[in-house]
Amino acid sequence: MKYTSHGIENLKIAYIGGGSRGWAWKLMSDLAVAGDVSGQVDLYDINYEAAHHNEIIGNKFNDAAGATTKWTYHARRTIGEALTGADFVIISILPATFDEMESDVHTPEKYGIYQPVGDTTGPGGIIRALRTIPMIEVIAKAIEKYCPNAWVINYTNPMALCIKSLYDTFPGIKAFGCCHEVFAVQELIAKAVKEATGAEITERKAVKTNVLGVNHFTWITDARYHNLDVNKIYHDFVEKYCESGVPKDNPDSVFECAHRVKFDLYKRYGVIAAAGDRHLSEFCEGSWYLKNDQQISEWDFVRTPVSWRKEDLNERIARSERLCSGEEEVTIQNTGEDGVRQIRALLGLGDYTTNVNLPNMGQIPNLPLGIVVETNAAFRDNSVDPIFAGAVPEGVWQLVSRAADAQAMVATAARERDLDLAFKAFANDPLVNLDLPTARKLFDEMVENTKEYLIEYFK
Amino acid sequence: MKYTSHGIENLKIAYIGGGSRGWAWKLMSDLAVAGDVSGQVDLYDINYEAAHHNEIIGNKFNDAAGATTKWTYHARRTIGEALTGADFVIISILPATFDEMESDVHTPEKYGIYQPVGDTTGPGGIIRALRTIPMIEVIAKAIEKYCPNAWVINYTNPMALCIKSLYDTFPGIKAFGCCHEVFAVQELIAKAVKEATGAEITERKAVKTNVLGVNHFTWITDARYHNLDVNKIYHDFVEKYCESGVPKDNPDSVFECAHRVKFDLYKRYGVIAAAGDRHLSEFCEGSWYLKNDQQISEWDFVRTPVSWRKEDLNERIARSERLCSGEEEVTIQNTGEDGVRQIRALLGLGDYTTNVNLPNMGQIPNLPLGIVVETNAAFRDNSVDPIFAGAVPEGVWQLVSRAADAQAMVATAARERDLDLAFKAFANDPLVNLDLPTARKLFDEMVENTKEYLIEYFK
Amino acid sequence: MKYTSHGIENLKIAYIGGGSRGWAWKLMSDLAVAGDVSGQVDLYDINYEAAHHNEIIGNKFNDAAGATTKWTYHARRTIGEALTGADFVIISILPATFDEMESDVHTPEKYGIYQPVGDTTGPGGIIRALRTIPMIEVIAKAIEKYCPNAWVINYTNPMALCIKSLYDTFPGIKAFGCCHEVFAVQELIAKAVKEATGAEITERKAVKTNVLGVNHFTWITDARYHNLDVNKIYHDFVEKYCESGVPKDNPDSVFECAHRVKFDLYKRYGVIAAAGDRHLSEFCEGSWYLKNDQQISEWDFVRTPVSWRKEDLNERIARSERLCSGEEEVTIQNTGEDGVRQIRALLGLGDYTTNVNLPNMGQIPNLPLGIVVETNAAFRDNSVDPIFAGAVPEGVWQLVSRAADAQAMVATAARERDLDLAFKAFANDPLVNLDLPTARKLFDEMVENTKEYLIEYFK
Amino acid sequence: MKYTSHGIENLKIAYIGGGSRGWAWKLMSDLAVAGDVSGQVDLYDINYEAAHHNEIIGNKFNDAAGATTKWTYHARRTIGEALTGADFVIISILPATFDEMESDVHTPEKYGIYQPVGDTTGPGGIIRALRTIPMIEVIAKAIEKYCPNAWVINYTNPMALCIKSLYDTFPGIKAFGCCHEVFAVQELIAKAVKEATGAEITERKAVKTNVLGVNHFTWITDARYHNLDVNKIYHDFVEKYCESGVPKDNPDSVFECAHRVKFDLYKRYGVIAAAGDRHLSEFCEGSWYLKNDQQISEWDFVRTPVSWRKEDLNERIARSERLCSGEEEVTIQNTGEDGVRQIRALLGLGDYTTNVNLPNMGQIPNLPLGIVVETNAAFRDNSVDPIFAGAVPEGVWQLVSRAADAQAMVATAARERDLDLAFKAFANDPLVNLDLPTARKLFDEMVENTKEYLIEYFK
Repeated sequence: MKYTSHGIENLKIAYIGGGSRGWAWKLMSDLAVAGDVSGQVDLYDINYEAAHHNEIIGNKFNDAAGATTKWTYHARRTIGEALTGADFVIISILPATFDEMESDVHTPEKYGIYQPVGDTTGPGGIIRALRTIPMIEVIAKAIEKYCPNAWVINYTNPMALCIKSLYDTFPGIKAFGCCHEVFAVQELIAKAVKEATGAEITERKAVKTNVLGVNHFTWITDARYHNLDVNKIYHDFVEKYCESGVPKDNPDSVFECAHRVKFDLYKRYGVIAAAGDRHLSEFCEGSWYLKNDQQISEWDFVRTPVSWRKEDLNERIARSERLCSGEEEVTIQNTGEDGVRQIRALLGLGDYTTNVNLPNMGQIPNLPLGIVVETNAAFRDNSVDPIFAGAVPEGVWQLVSRAADAQAMVATAARERDLDLAFKAFANDPLVNLDLPTARKLFDEMVENTKEYLIEYFK
Repeated sequence: MKYTSHGIENLKIAYIGGGSRGWAWKLMSDLAVAGDVSGQVDLYDINYEAAHHNEIIGNKFNDAAGATTKWTYHARRTIGEALTGADFVIISILPATFDEMESDVHTPEKYGIYQPVGDTTGPGGIIRALRTIPMIEVIAKAIEKYCPNAWVINYTNPMALCIKSLYDTFPGIKAFGCCHEVFAVQELIAKAVKEATGAEITERKAVKTNVLGVNHFTWITDARYHNLDVNKIYHDFVEKYCESGVPKDNPDSVFECAHRVKFDLYKRYGVIAAAGDRHLSEFCEGSWYLKNDQQISEWDFVRTPVSWRKEDLNERIARSERLCSGEEEVTIQNTGEDGVRQIRALLGLGDYTTNVNLPNMGQIPNLPLGIVVETNAAFRDNSVDPIFAGAVPEGVWQLVSRAADAQAMVATAARERDLDLAFKAFANDPLVNLDLPTARKLFDEMVENTKEYLIEYFK
Repeated sequence: MKYTSHGIENLKIAYIGGGSRGWAWKLMSDLAVAGDVSGQVDLYDINYEAAHHNEIIGNKFNDAAGATTKWTYHARRTIGEALTGADFVIISILPATFDEMESDVHTPEKYGIYQPVGDTTGPGGIIRALRTIPMIEVIAKAIEKYCPNAWVINYTNPMALCIKSLYDTFPGIKAFGCCHEVFAVQELIAKAVKEATGAEITERKAVKTNVLGVNHFTWITDARYHNLDVNKIYHDFVEKYCESGVPKDNPDSVFECAHRVKFDLYKRYGVIAAAGDRHLSEFCEGSWYLKNDQQISEWDFVRTPVSWRKEDLNERIARSERLCSGEEEVTIQNTGEDGVRQIRALLGLGDYTTNVNLPNMGQIPNLPLGIVVETNAAFRDNSVDPIFAGAVPEGVWQLVSRAADAQAMVATAARERDLDLAFKAFANDPLVNLDLPTARKLFDEMVENTKEYLIEYFK
Repeated sequence: MKYTSHGIENLKIAYIGGGSRGWAWKLMSDLAVAGDVSGQVDLYDINYEAAHHNEIIGNKFNDAAGATTKWTYHARRTIGEALTGADFVIISILPATFDEMESDVHTPEKYGIYQPVGDTTGPGGIIRALRTIPMIEVIAKAIEKYCPNAWVINYTNPMALCIKSLYDTFPGIKAFGCCHEVFAVQELIAKAVKEATGAEITERKAVKTNVLGVNHFTWITDARYHNLDVNKIYHDFVEKYCESGVPKDNPDSVFECAHRVKFDLYKRYGVIAAAGDRHLSEFCEGSWYLKNDQQISEWDFVRTPVSWRKEDLNERIARSERLCSGEEEVTIQNTGEDGVRQIRALLGLGDYTTNVNLPNMGQIPNLPLGIVVETNAAFRDNSVDPIFAGAVPEGVWQLVSRAADAQAMVATAARERDLDLAFKAFANDPLVNLDLPTARKLFDEMVENTKEYLIEYFK
């Protein structure tokens, strides 16, 4: 890259999982209006054709209405080509296919275990981690080899374990992980403030929050807006909506929730849980919110079926073809994503603070060092420094420390390709409330279902 | 007290709860053969008559067969009299009566919650703590006033919370807590070693162990005997007995267990749980071992009914009368208790190492500072220093940190007489797997049942 | 205060030490161009007349050329009046008079101890702390009483000990301390970058730095500007100028230095010391840079004589009179101060990151918790959160930990009015390289000289 | 080794530095009366002849008057032979010769730096560490290869750095370091107690002490004997003898001191320094006690000249020849050494508590983890666990943390064969109060003098 009087030229971004038909397009849109930063994006994907389609689509963005900045897209056949010379690396991969995810999410149902997402924790999250971490290790080694000074932004789940694996594999890596679950809760708080005071809050960033926890199980211990007592406002908001739930924008969504789980957790602990209810429920005792579909429905959230993901993928593939062929035009949207803002701050184009996933160096003093945690961090010209977040509050600490410990166990199990240790974590999971032999039966079945991607564990 | 060439004379021990018809008699027996340490024991009890009976019984020990050392016993009408001039204070009280304990243990059964003991954790342990801590505060303040330099040995449950309250109330106190649950597991390990090797191990102390955790939920992370691989021996012992259980000495006992819970925990975590199964089960998810009486019976341990305790008390009262009247003679036994050995070490009569309960100063680096933990400690002439025990192992840490956090919450709730905070801990307990309104209903009922002893919470 | 659609109105700032003839005028200038924030400033000073003069001068700023914002100034006769209703409190006092400072700085010369500043550490800093901390305690208690939710910005030296005393006295205080010593070093680094690359760096803030240490003995462990290797650039800069020094702007200044001490420390430790050489030298062995005036002159910095301060004060008093009378007009300058930027960020008008003094919560993991340290912090709407700064590097840690320990000792000595403990810290100071009886003689003499302000130590 | 009903047979001890003409003979004497532990000692030394002489001498001990236990001694030509099958390893080597030590101790005199010992810290200690650590690495690797489960007892100086290197090289090592400097101070305290009270204290172990610090710079924060106020007794003892010093047993000794340095440190910090004054003085500012020989003489201790060591060695060589030839008979003495007591405790033959050097795991919470510290530890059947020692007291912490930091720097410098980093530590040493170029000159000269043993630093 090159700093000029007009901004930055020749920036190189490598995109691992560059065949993505979702987040990649948002990035293209954001880059097209980046203004004073231009360069190239190298797309690498084990599905080369998908990357190639994105090369075509990405280059079309240069001519989209409103585009201000030129970016060149290249699909690359090797990860080495993509990474060489990269200033930034984006990792956004689907580990294996939705068939494996189907096993992760739905096999446990036979044992009375229901997972709304199944990609982070719980039996599904653990099995997913076992197959993902060896892939992340390959990527981390390639980064060490081809672009050790690049900034690495991960979007892949299980987020915390991917970041942990990146640092475990290449300790000198400059990596962090981004997730927008917290953003939606900041919007919910903004909504509560607007409802209580009529304040005109135009963007969630106007409400300042202190965030802490582990990815998808984050908590807001302080929220501030001007001289209002936001914590009191949220308390009243919970009282108002804890029974009815907050009306959903789209009642048919397979993602949205009415926030009743979040409000129940607030009543239990007095702290704002900061993720969607689908994720939050997976970190609690299974009997609390996930006993069966009736209970889930009473708490007014949904399990996202993998069949939906498969259909949705087909639609996105079809759209990809339309975009390539020109049957549909690429358009610049307001994505609400943080990625390009973070890149700009790392380039020295304006300080920025947001919540990210990083190894714990003490930003959360009552969680183990080295565990990947989520807190605010200061992005300031080639540096991301965590902001001291304080201790996880009593009560909540019990749940978060459990998740932190599980993270450590699964990370070790995957790094050492040790299925017996992985099973220890599995049997310990709050959703796996089974006796040991039954838990092992489920574990073995899930491993068997996805063994094509677990061959390294059987060497 | 006075050091002489023959030993120590005029030692003064104050016994709070000195009407005890159990542990007090063991102490009398041990003191009668203490050899070079003699003095007086002042008995204080809210039931003065019981203390007075023990004065009579205690003084009879001077004439028991085998007695080597004279001790004078006095019942005292005020705690101040008992404590003034004391070198040691023993605290061994029953907080309230067995009627309150009956509520603690059995009320939750209506909600499907079964507690084998109910005095440490779980709903029963929490309610018991709420009424005990204000009593302990009174004792701590009296110690600060009357004998601030005395060593204080607590036997009252909930152990950890009593010790925490002693330190919270009088930070300069020299207190620790003793419990023999670990001893029985050391004997179990000795038994495993004998069975595997034929080794002649005459006492549990010959097997050296590293102990860590919180009271009644302690773990042995290392066991050693000569150059044997004791950890491997125990592993094989678990394999042999995990299904059948270890045959009990007395199948009708309301305390004994077949160690199947302990072995299941070993299989889950690879670490030796070091307490009776009745206690261990109370710190785990209720569904693991305590779903119902059938499950408890399958795991081959028992719930101790409070009705049994009431009957047993009646028998002990009767025995007390027989001992007072001379109908039954006092006899010196080998009690196996540690108390007098600890007192001797504190007097400088021989270093001693054993497991005790103390505030965490870092002896367990991955538990919060200030929480009361159980580890080995070195007793050396007027000092009890914890021995570094290492971190709670992964997996186990999830369970122990949960208990540690609950301890902190209950301690604060009791100190601040805050029932709402107490309820937060209550609803979080692994045995209280209820939705919030139901949990509150149970909590309120248990408080109502025992409100006579909770009046300070309603001021 | 009141948030309106135009900004913030009716903000109230209380200025303790409001008779100041220096920093107060800068604040007036900055407030006059604050734009969307207006309100009142209440001036309190034990010298009421001085405060009253500043009321007159402050109100004149409303009519200065370029003024955009109205502020009303009031001198107040009691601290309570000044603090009541305050949103912000500024503490900027001179503890005692320059006569006491003359003793602090110059008495030790008789013993071969030379202090360039004498207000932070060393014998002068310690004695100054002893008389300042009781004053700060009075202010902290008044804040707790009159405006417990106000933000408190301290400028008084000894900075770290003042902040520590504020928190020790009123633990709930929202206080931090600001000092511009680091800024000058950021400018020095910017200069090095410009010299090496020709880069156009218009303000020091463009170079991002990681700051850590204790006030006036801060270190920059990382400096970044775009994709330049700033650390290498600084290394070369040191090589170039370590012998000659960097030419001073004003060779007659009693503050400026040629940075030779800073460069020597860089050669010793490989880390950028981030304060003026006058301050840095006071934290090192006296023999390194402060053996005598010849050595000081060789290192090309100066001792600021208190006689200069006295003359300068007279000039400022004269100027104050001219400004009051209108003989001289008030003018708006570009002050380069951070205060108003910080206030704006705390009001929610734009996030801001800068270095401040706060109790250590873990932002510097290898310094004791609770000690006041200086690092970057994120200012975000009613919150100042330290940014994780990392460990003090080896080598430097020896010096900084010594200063941190001294801080703790002096804080306790002052809080407990314990001159013997204060002397322990005094005798331990790197500048006080005297045998114990001689050190005590000096200490007693300095206490005697300033005893009018130390009466509480003799009660 | 083999446990039998009579004790332990066939124990194998490997002695690295087995040609020793001092400590080895004491060990032989202690082993000859070990009673129920017998076996063989394999002697390895780079001077094979010396080891062979000790084989002869050792075997003679079996026939000495009072010998109760048979031990077979073998000189071995390779370290592998000596270590294979070893249960214990003793490391007691002289790194290089007394010629190198002469340079370490006396070269700095030209620069006004006077070292009473020069083997631990200061310029001499640092240079000695640089040549010793590569030797220790070789030994550690051999232990890992030949007897990874053996217990390793080190006596070599610089103690802390040798232990650190053992753990750095082979993290699984079971090593600790023993030093008797603390013992002499325990005897001094016992003497004070006897003098004050007439108490009959027959051995230093009767006074219980809490020890903390780094080797040769240890501190006793608590001393106890029965119900006496030992801390007060010591305070009065200091007052009595601080001017005169305690009369020496042998005024011509090149080791003994009058404890005036120790008493001065007590007056400075209120804590008992627990090493000989020769060692203590080396950790303080050079100007305090080591300005010149006159000052040293006033403080009434001595510098041990290396010429004395050379003469003494000649005498010991001569004695070795007499013992071999039978001209002089081997005799069993009461050595006062701890080694065999520790070995017995590690074999399970009785718990034992003493002060040893181990990596900091938290036993001293305010020193960095991983640094080698000295505290009490519990020896209990195949385990050495540090006893929690508490924080280094304020004031003292400044000195000890400086030493701890230097230890870390020198360890890294030696491990990475980095003379520039070694020089950073060197220039930072409290005795090296020189400007940087002069310090470098001295450093280079000392390296040059001993370069035969530093060749790995020049590869």
